[in-house]
Parts: sequence; structure tokens; C-alpha cells
Amino acid sequence: MALVDQLDIVIPTIRNLDFLEQWRPFFQPYHLIIVQDGDPTKTIKVPPGFDYELFNRNDIERIVGDKAWCISYKDSACRCFGFLVSKKRYIYTIDDDCFVAKDPSNEDINALEQHIKNLLSPATPYIFNTLYDPYREGADFVRGYPFSLREGVPTAISHGLWLNIPDYDAPTQMVKPLERNTRYVDAVLTIPKGTLYPMCGMNMAFDRALIGPAMYFGLMGEGQPIGRYDDMWAGWCSKVICDHLGLGVKTGLPYIYHSKASNPFTNLRKEYKGIFWQEEIIPFFQQTQLSKDSTSVTACYLELAEKVRAGLGHIDPYFAKLADGMVAWIETWQALNPDYEK
Amino acid sequence: MALVDQLDIVIPTIRNLDFLEQWRPFFQPYHLIIVQDGDPTKTIKVPPGFDYELFNRNDIERIVGDKAWCISYKDSACRCFGFLVSKKRYIYTIDDDCFVAKDPSNEDINALEQHIKNLLSPATPYIFNTLYDPYREGADFVRGYPFSLREGVPTAISHGLWLNIPDYDAPTQMVKPLERNTRYVDAVLTIPKGTLYPMCGMNMAFDRALIGPAMYFGLMGEGQPIGRYDDMWAGWCSKVICDHLGLGVKTGLPYIYHSKASNPFTNLRKEYKGIFWQEEIIPFFQQTQLSKDSTSVTACYLELAEKVRAGLGHIDPYFAKLADGMVAWIETWQALNPDYEK
Repeated sequence: MALVDQLDIVIPTIRNLDFLEQWRPFFQPYHLIIVQDGDPTKTIKVPPGFDYELFNRNDIERIVGDKAWCISYKDSACRCFGFLVSKKRYIYTIDDDCFVAKDPSNEDINALEQHIKNLLSPATPYIFNTLYDPYREGADFVRGYPFSLREGVPTAISHGLWLNIPDYDAPTQMVKPLERNTRYVDAVLTIPKGTLYPMCGMNMAFDRALIGPAMYFGLMGEGQPIGRYDDMWAGWCSKVICDHLGLGVKTGLPYIYHSKASNPFTNLRKEYKGIFWQEEIIPFFQQTQLSKDSTSVTACYLELAEKVRAGLGHIDPYFAKLADGMVAWIETWQALNPDYEK
Repeated sequence: MALVDQLDIVIPTIRNLDFLEQWRPFFQPYHLIIVQDGDPTKTIKVPPGFDYELFNRNDIERIVGDKAWCISYKDSACRCFGFLVSKKRYIYTIDDDCFVAKDPSNEDINALEQHIKNLLSPATPYIFNTLYDPYREGADFVRGYPFSLREGVPTAISHGLWLNIPDYDAPTQMVKPLERNTRYVDAVLTIPKGTLYPMCGMNMAFDRALIGPAMYFGLMGEGQPIGRYDDMWAGWCSKVICDHLGLGVKTGLPYIYHSKASNPFTNLRKEYKGIFWQEEIIPFFQQTQLSKDSTSVTACYLELAEKVRAGLGHIDPYFAKLADGMVAWIETWQALNPDYEK
């Protein structure tokens, strides 16, 4: 399965030349969107043979104009600019320290192919199927699974995992500096309706047509009080909206090989406010009910922005700014994608 | 880990002499409770060396007295009688066509040991951890998992899976007669709060002290309009009560080897009403909210019985009888376990 004409790969900066070389057999047929997160005068080298666009801060300012402040600077959260300018239906996004992993039979894992399988087959958010993905070869719905739910719902998000360096927060990194993930769990499953999960942006794919505008990675990096919550923010918002609109979110396969742990001290500085704030943010999202009138992703997202302003503003002035950013993001999405939801 | 003095193994009838021989290395240290589901004049042979009690229908009538009608006859649902008379904290229940499975490295799987691990470590029903069981060696909570939830909640139920013959309903058995489950998924996960799952009674364990009275396997078999929904019934009721009381339910490892598919034609005859009814029963359980005053399992179960009478009675007179059975079951539980919940 390949969706060469329907999928873009979005990468927030490439610091590692090996990265594209290693992924060449899998990525070369696709169009790459590279969003440079730092100094625009620095050059990103892309090896020959790849079809790509490279956007730096100057490009973002030029294209988004006076709302460019809603795209994070000096932070991988800038990747969502790539989601905005893509013209394709599907997005795969991956970090430049993620390499090709091996499955238990020592074969290279084609992560993109597995994400596409996940996105093109339905999801089952209403009841948990104990043999995991019922649409996978050799599996099905188990006894007691209602027949009326066996068509499933469209899958909007495919969240992949990581071998080697697990995606831990700074405190866990500090406590377990040597922990490596070596367990290959051969499963894909739907995260049930009403359940949140920590969405990691390192290795994930989504259907832009179904959920694109919810994939805003917030305000992180330079000038902002937190970092490393960009993907969490997108994960909470998109899950609440998927649940409201009857869309599915899958997690599990595929694995990538996460090569290096980021610095736990730097991470702690970026994260520490988020560590406090998430204790309130998560219950907020767990209790959020969107109105029946919000029937599109953009309408849901704008409603959510106002709920964030009203419900989280007391934590810190940051949340009012973030709510403004959410609105600016949707206005930019609509300006750059005039036919979206039409 | 072993809980020799704290766990009973409950088996609904043993037709297969090989069964106990194959499990001998794992089961022999434990006390077995065998509940004979059919004709009490037939003899069940137990190989030497096992510590066991055998209860047939005459014993059930004698011990339960005028409420013995609430224990199913000629159906493996009678296993719940074993839960009633056990004096131990933990129960493992397994069918006699389930054998020792092999893990991917071709080692025999000690299913009981894995169930005990599952029951003795906490569960995480409020947020999904993408690296699965965070308490397992080599795993932890991922970035973005709130620290306030990392203690988890007590685990009440451990639901294991099956290699070889999957637990399919009759229609799926008929459509896919040759399908075998060969996928060993190396994971244990918590079924999130608010999500139902089809609980299979073939290979499961639970904490009697935490959830015992919710493990009633209903009215099945002779004289009843349905079969093969005994474990489903216990699964729906116990999940709703676990969610209400803040207890966890895990599924995944361990696997057993399910040796033979039951006859799909016989199964269809037993199941077909359930196939219709579950379309209403499941939404009923999904919407059920227990009252704050119900703070014990028995109180929750009695409240649920009245909800079943009021909410499902219109489907068939069977549900009024089942509600009566649920009440009789709790009364019997209390009579035989006078110190329970004290």
C-alpha cells in the first residue's frame, strides 16, 4: 500500500544527514515538507534524489503574515506549519533522530506503510476488542462484540511507537537514564472513546481531511513559558474532537528506532510548568463536552479555543494567548485551505 | 510469585484427562475447585497428586438450598458456584480445553504466574499509557502522563487470551472455520474507565475480595433461552462496578492454548438470542450510572439487578428472572461468606 500522491512527510528540521539516507528506500517516492525550526540563515542539507520543500522562519512570516506568531519559533512545534501548507490528504510526521527499526525477525520496518494501513482501515472506539485490531489479517471481532459496531468508524490518527529510547519526561529520564525499550508489541489498537492518551509527535500520521485543523502544536519554544507539550496539546485537542465527531485514533505499530535521548536537564527546564499544569489541563479535557452544533473540525476547534480561554485562563495568562493562537491558527488554515470542509 | 495459600483454581467440569496432566507443574501446588456442569451420576476422574474438591449438582442443591436455581445447570456458567464456596482471596478460572501455550521463544507459559503479576500490580484506567503496562520491567509512564495518576488503582480482574482457536461467536466461526490465532502480543494493558470489553471466562483471574460478588455467570444452559453469554454477563456487570468503585481491569498476557473449537451449529443455537439482545444490553451497560450510595460490590450488584429489571425487562421476561437470580446470588454469597465486606 502506498499513497505517493496523497501523503506528505513533514519533518521539523533535519540536523542529521544520515536520517534521510536511512529512510531513502521508504521516503524517496514521497514529497517532503521540511520546516526549519531555528536560525533561517543556517542551511539544511538534503541529499540528492528527494522531492522536498524547505520552509524557514522567513517563509513562515511571508506565508502566514501577521498571524505568523501562532507558529512556534525555535521549537519542533513549528512542524504544524507543514500541516497547514500541505495539499495532500494524509500527513506523516517524524523527528530527525528517528531511524528505521527492526522487527523481531530482523527485517527493516516500513513505518510509513504500517501508518497507511492503520489510517485506511476502520477504528473501533466504542468497545474494546480483546484481540486488538479486528481488521488485521488473522484477527477478527471476538465473541460478544456487537455486530452493529463491526463496520467501525473512519480512522483519523495513527500513533506509532519507539524502540530504544522511550519517550519519557525529564524526571523519568533522570531516574532511569539507562532504560531502553526493547519490547516489540505486535499490536495496533483503538484508543477507546472518552479516553485520553499522551500523543507523541515523533512518529505519527493523520488524515488531514478528517482532523487536520486540530493538529495545531500550540505555542512553544522561544518566548513561551513551556516546551515539550506541543504534541500533547495536539493530542488532547484532537482526541476530544475525534470522540465528538465519531472518528478513531489508533496506537501501537509501527515502531521507529529512537536514537538519542534529549538532554534531561534542558527538558526539565522546558517541561516543569507543564508537569504542574497538566494536572489541571487533563481533567479539563476529560470533562470537555463540545456542542452538537459543532459538526466540523474547525467549528469544534474554535469552540475548544473558547473553552480553553474560560476554563484554563486562571492557571496562567499563557492560556489566553494560547486560545488566541488557536483562533489565529484556524483563520490561517481557512485562508490557506479555502476549499477545506466545503 | 506464587499465592499458593491465597488462590483457588476453579474449573467447570473436566472431560479431558490430559488437561490436568499438562498443567500439573503449574497447578499442583494449588487447591482446585471442580464444578461438574452435567449429570451428577457421571464420574470425573482427577489424576493423583492434586488437592481438589469436586461439586456436582447434588452438592450445589445441598449447599445453596432453595436458591440453587440461580446456579446454571448443564452449562459452564456453573463455575461461579466455585467462586461462592472458595475461601481464598484470588480465583483463577480456566476451561478444560485450554492447555499450556508456548511463548515466541518456545518456552511453556506459566499462565497463573502472569495472572498473579497482573493482579498484584496496579492498573491505570484513567489515561491510556502508550507503552502499555507501566509497571512492567523495562517500561514506565510516558511523557505527558500526569504524575498524580502514577500510583494507579488496585487491579480486580486479569483477563488472559488464547492462541490457536480464537474466541469467536458462531457466525464468525462459520465464516472463518480455519482461522487460528498465531499472534503473540507481548502486552498487558488496562481497559480504560467507561469502556466495555467482551470478557471471556476461558482464562481469567480476579480478586475475590475486591470484585467477587460481581462474578455471577447468570442463568444459562438447561431451561434458559440463551447460552454462551455467561462470561459476557459477568464481564459487563463487573466492569461497570469496577469503574464505579475505582478498580482496574487488565487484558492481554497470559496466553493459553485453546485446543478445540466448540461446534458452531450448537453455538449458534445457544447464542442467537444473545446476538440480538446484546445490541440493547451493551448500550444499557454503557449508560448505567450507579449511585454514590453504592460503595460495596454487593450494594452495587443489588442496585444493578434492579436496573436490569427496569431497563432490560421489556426485551424478554428472561431479564426479570435474571434480575431475581442476581439478587438470589448475592443473598447466597452473603450467607456463605458472612465476613465478606466486614
